[in-house]
Amino acid sequence: MNGRVALVGAGPGDPELLTLKAVRCLQEADLILYDALVDPEVLNLAPDARRFYVGKRGGRPSFKQADIEALMIKAASRGDYVVRLKCGDPFVLGRGGEEAIALSKAGIPFEVVPGVTSAISAPLLAGIPVTHRGVSPAFLMLSGHTRESWSPILKSVSPNTVTLVVLMGLRSRMRLSDYLIQQGWRPDTPVAVLLAASTPNAETWTGTLSSLRDAFDHLDYVDSPGTIVIGDVVDVAQQIRPMMTHSRAELTSPAKRAFSTYL
Amino acid sequence: MNGRVALVGAGPGDPELLTLKAVRCLQEADLILYDALVDPEVLNLAPDARRFYVGKRGGRPSFKQADIEALMIKAASRGDYVVRLKCGDPFVLGRGGEEAIALSKAGIPFEVVPGVTSAISAPLLAGIPVTHRGVSPAFLMLSGHTRESWSPILKSVSPNTVTLVVLMGLRSRMRLSDYLIQQGWRPDTPVAVLLAASTPNAETWTGTLSSLRDAFDHLDYVDSPGTIVIGDVVDVAQQIRPMMTHSRAELTSPAKRAFSTYL
Repeated sequence: MNGRVALVGAGPGDPELLTLKAVRCLQEADLILYDALVDPEVLNLAPDARRFYVGKRGGRPSFKQADIEALMIKAASRGDYVVRLKCGDPFVLGRGGEEAIALSKAGIPFEVVPGVTSAISAPLLAGIPVTHRGVSPAFLMLSGHTRESWSPILKSVSPNTVTLVVLMGLRSRMRLSDYLIQQGWRPDTPVAVLLAASTPNAETWTGTLSSLRDAFDHLDYVDSPGTIVIGDVVDVAQQIRPMMTHSRAELTSPAKRAFSTYL
Repeated sequence: MNGRVALVGAGPGDPELLTLKAVRCLQEADLILYDALVDPEVLNLAPDARRFYVGKRGGRPSFKQADIEALMIKAASRGDYVVRLKCGDPFVLGRGGEEAIALSKAGIPFEVVPGVTSAISAPLLAGIPVTHRGVSPAFLMLSGHTRESWSPILKSVSPNTVTLVVLMGLRSRMRLSDYLIQQGWRPDTPVAVLLAASTPNAETWTGTLSSLRDAFDHLDYVDSPGTIVIGDVVDVAQQIRPMMTHSRAELTSPAKRAFSTYL
């Protein structure tokens, strides 16, 4: 009985943004419990593992957290190596800490493998540095999921003193805009909304705090993962974007060639 | 003349925490300009590239930022594919945004490859989730480099309302401790200091805001990269650590076997 678990960050979406350690975990796994938004190409890295979808998406019926934890513990208890594959980083929102506590309580050995968080990479891929010398040496990352999660945090910060990075806040964008302006933030504070960053469906909207309420207003319900950045760093992208390019390699072709060089 | 540049995040230190995209860039590079703290094993992924050390470490004579930018532009202008390998994530402190602007101004095409930031992964590897439901849905990442960088930020936040993650703040730890307590933070606020996270030299200190001034006081000058976490999430680690394990694979052996499975 050598069952164990790895809580693994899958990064923002592009399979090439997996870490080498995440790939090793996937290739050693017996069972993979994966979230919504994990690319099929990532799962193909583990052709022999059993795979089980345990995703949750806002506004849809979803797997219960307790069931996910029970499933991990049950499989590891009978000897499986279970990889719990989570979007972004396991300890940035997403309840990875709770899963780790459940495993420790159950006496199951586990590892946590950090991932590239969309809180930083979504802005980056749109040319927005979350920190920039002379503009902002800090950023405040918060959940936009419910008003109870963001309003106490935003109330405690003086207006326009720090860059805000809001995850899971797409459906709150109107309330966020109203709330911040009411708290004294400049209505012309630059804002970017980044949808599905690092995937082929990526979209960027830029505007201001007062126009944020209209961002992606053609989308009745936004099902993509989204990152909202609020602060002057958004404007830095105008100097960065002119020569910025993006590359994307399928793991089954160019990256394969790349790896064969060093293997 | 197809010169170009990639600004690549190398992650917190463990070579296995490189992304697949970072590895592809290294393997295609003609010239690598690398920071301090990059593991030699990472450079071995690019045996054919020329390598040039451009690191800066606090308190030591260092390469000038303008020289690094000029070197990148010069090499790319004569047709080289230049990889600028930066610790952590290129756009979290570390002046990646300035390098991107310099490249855009010079008309050099470039890509930015996000990396695993130590702001999140250093706490994670010590069992500290930077966010945790019921404890904190947010964190404020800031530079501890100079008092001018952190005091305006800390002044704008109400005491004990948000988790603080301070990078490059090891030498400021006494001043940070004094300042926060003076601002009204609870002296018994849990604090962790994480040195050289993800490397074989990793060390963790835990205490409180009032004892932070004594953290690692046996070290006259702390040369390791350090992350300071201030807030109640530090205590969550007590429930996470009991069964937490860490794995480390050399890229030249177990990971090599792992990759050969999918190639």
